[in-house]
Amino acid sequence: MEKYINPEYSILSDLCIRPSTDNPVVRERVDKIITRVKEGGDAALRSLAEEIDGSAPSCLECKSDEFTFAENAVSDSVRKAIAQAAQNIEAFHRAQLPETVEIETSLGVRCIQKAVPIQRVGLYIPGGTAPLFSTVLMLAIPAKVAQCKEVILCTPVSRQTGKVASEVLYAAKYCGVDKVYKVGGAQAIAAMAFGTETIAKVDKIFGPGNQYVTTAKQLLGNKYVAIDLPAGPSEVMVMADASAVPAFVAADLLSQAEHGADSQVILVCDSESIAEGVQAEIDAQLRQLGRSEIASRALENSRIIVFNGEDSRSRMTDFANLYGPEHLIISLENPWEIASRIISAGSVFIGNWSPESAGDYASGTNHTLPTCGWSRAHSGVNIDSFIRKITFQELSQDGLRGLSQTITAMADAEGLQAHANAVSIRMGKSSL
Amino acid sequence: MEKYINPEYSILSDLCIRPSTDNPVVRERVDKIITRVKEGGDAALRSLAEEIDGSAPSCLECKSDEFTFAENAVSDSVRKAIAQAAQNIEAFHRAQLPETVEIETSLGVRCIQKAVPIQRVGLYIPGGTAPLFSTVLMLAIPAKVAQCKEVILCTPVSRQTGKVASEVLYAAKYCGVDKVYKVGGAQAIAAMAFGTETIAKVDKIFGPGNQYVTTAKQLLGNKYVAIDLPAGPSEVMVMADASAVPAFVAADLLSQAEHGADSQVILVCDSESIAEGVQAEIDAQLRQLGRSEIASRALENSRIIVFNGEDSRSRMTDFANLYGPEHLIISLENPWEIASRIISAGSVFIGNWSPESAGDYASGTNHTLPTCGWSRAHSGVNIDSFIRKITFQELSQDGLRGLSQTITAMADAEGLQAHANAVSIRMGKSSL
Repeated sequence: MEKYINPEYSILSDLCIRPSTDNPVVRERVDKIITRVKEGGDAALRSLAEEIDGSAPSCLECKSDEFTFAENAVSDSVRKAIAQAAQNIEAFHRAQLPETVEIETSLGVRCIQKAVPIQRVGLYIPGGTAPLFSTVLMLAIPAKVAQCKEVILCTPVSRQTGKVASEVLYAAKYCGVDKVYKVGGAQAIAAMAFGTETIAKVDKIFGPGNQYVTTAKQLLGNKYVAIDLPAGPSEVMVMADASAVPAFVAADLLSQAEHGADSQVILVCDSESIAEGVQAEIDAQLRQLGRSEIASRALENSRIIVFNGEDSRSRMTDFANLYGPEHLIISLENPWEIASRIISAGSVFIGNWSPESAGDYASGTNHTLPTCGWSRAHSGVNIDSFIRKITFQELSQDGLRGLSQTITAMADAEGLQAHANAVSIRMGKSSL
Repeated sequence: MEKYINPEYSILSDLCIRPSTDNPVVRERVDKIITRVKEGGDAALRSLAEEIDGSAPSCLECKSDEFTFAENAVSDSVRKAIAQAAQNIEAFHRAQLPETVEIETSLGVRCIQKAVPIQRVGLYIPGGTAPLFSTVLMLAIPAKVAQCKEVILCTPVSRQTGKVASEVLYAAKYCGVDKVYKVGGAQAIAAMAFGTETIAKVDKIFGPGNQYVTTAKQLLGNKYVAIDLPAGPSEVMVMADASAVPAFVAADLLSQAEHGADSQVILVCDSESIAEGVQAEIDAQLRQLGRSEIASRALENSRIIVFNGEDSRSRMTDFANLYGPEHLIISLENPWEIASRIISAGSVFIGNWSPESAGDYASGTNHTLPTCGWSRAHSGVNIDSFIRKITFQELSQDGLRGLSQTITAMADAEGLQAHANAVSIRMGKSSL
């Protein structure tokens, strides 16, 4: 981790730069995969699986015996964990369900805003080194709370076993996912965006993935299908002062660093001694990590920034908002005073007893969050992500009369005569 | 308008097809414009204005004398209209402001979801044949209600006068827009996405535009900047039965048709006699419209669909949901019964006294709405469009202890040892 002491204002935005992930070769490959799936449907999914993974599953959809196998394979401790995590995630997302808004803006003019669930949502769960079944909970639970009509899930099979990870299948069934398909990579995203013989087209796609998956989401998103969030590598910022425990801070930074070599972790603190204490703890803990090589590479993208002196709290806060971290841990004295001034972050963790991993799994907040500074414009996944808000208006005859001069004056000034006429004709005088 | 009587189920999705707008030539030109603005900043904006519009404004930003000129140029009736419309729009959007959500998901585990305004938003207002100052109200008012810190606006000058339309400038000042820039087209979108010497980069871009503008939003959106909605030509569907007034229905269809030659209007009704009555009224009213040529061309993309027989109300409703119209007018007996079953639409107009133009200007609902079937996944612009929701969590030591087994079990099963350790180390036992 590179260390910066009281960096000049002019370089602060450089310190917000994330590791680059743009890769034209990936883009070109994904483009071809998309075209094949769009044109070839199921057959293209099969031939792509054979080319990329070496073999294609005999049936794309997971059947009941596979769910039964998975249920038996999952340990009691994981089942209990899923149950507790699910309860908290459900409670917090249920509390977010919006009320219908209804007001009379003028006499006889009723305006209503009503939430309606998105009908068909598609979840993508990566395979890879570890089966991320926690993401199944984070996406399927709010989808069900929002009452989406159909929730499907695509995930690759393991190259070793030829099966979907048992935890993923178990979590999918536990959360009420309607169908699980054994399709991974960019081809899964394309299949959900366009539909195939087996996989019905969805209205919105959610979920993380490797470069191929995120490139497919980027290429297809808002052209053929809606997507949850623009994607990027995961990141955490920890703000620390003398009230922080260096061993805890180091553990939090490492828990983010182990996600991937392109992760970024940032420590912002108010003294060099804390920086040194945390660095020493990182060195000690890192050696013992199973994924130490991945974490080490992530630490190369990472930074320690010390703002010491009188206005250090303000400068730390301003930098946090400039960076807009996906995860922000506030290990400071009086953390809520700082938290109240945070205007750009995905999810915020307050004090010494709120590690990022609590939010990653079980506190109830969502772990699908804006990375790469997208927190400046995007929320993390929340109940809103699974609904649309439709507006309704009903004017009485008097209500329309009360607005008629306003509407016709504006329509005339915009040169839209037919707009004016739709009112005039109702007032008994065509303006044509 | 082509007429379909009880179309087969199998062709219904064909009847939802919108006029195509994909144009590779436009895309290529926009790509070049984007690169020039990204690299050249203000100088590129000037040279593009000279090339495309024949001349560049001496100063990109509108100054106080221009606002004063505009204020004097706007008629009293338009000022009054803006004041009444603004009041309704503000009231309805203010009613949508979300409350902070706070719950204790487990003992000692507090989860909070708080709305924070997007800091810098950029609005685009097209020039063209008519100055769409109503869109200034629809975008700037919710931005101010949400308390966005800076609201800027780009709009082209008129080729005739070399000035920004007075109504646009007046409305911008009335709504509290911070800065107005005389830049139009794809170059305005690029300028707001990347920033130039004069125009500060924004976090999110809102607003309609021609093919160049919408292509620029599509190319830059969710790569360099957030955007409001995927764009497409405007559309209306009217559902009508014997309770509808054919002259009103025709006026509503024409008010949409006059927007542009690529607009689409759809009449869905339960008898051929209504279809004929509306068609006759369209013919009569069309002849008298100033923009009759545009409207006529839009009518060529348009359809009348008759579902008669016993289950006509259900079939009309199903088709409305399949089409997912931007604007939906329900001119039916007992309209709320149908409205309660609408799950895909941007904004819905109930009964005979609620023309689309009421919502376009003054009822209080927003007129920036999802087109092209995007209502299946997107809301129209509303207060949520100008905020982000940040989550916060605070666990007490006991709160973390209560979740510790859950978190470590899940982290272990996902192979993420450092995630588990961030909890174990706080529980006094490192898991490394």
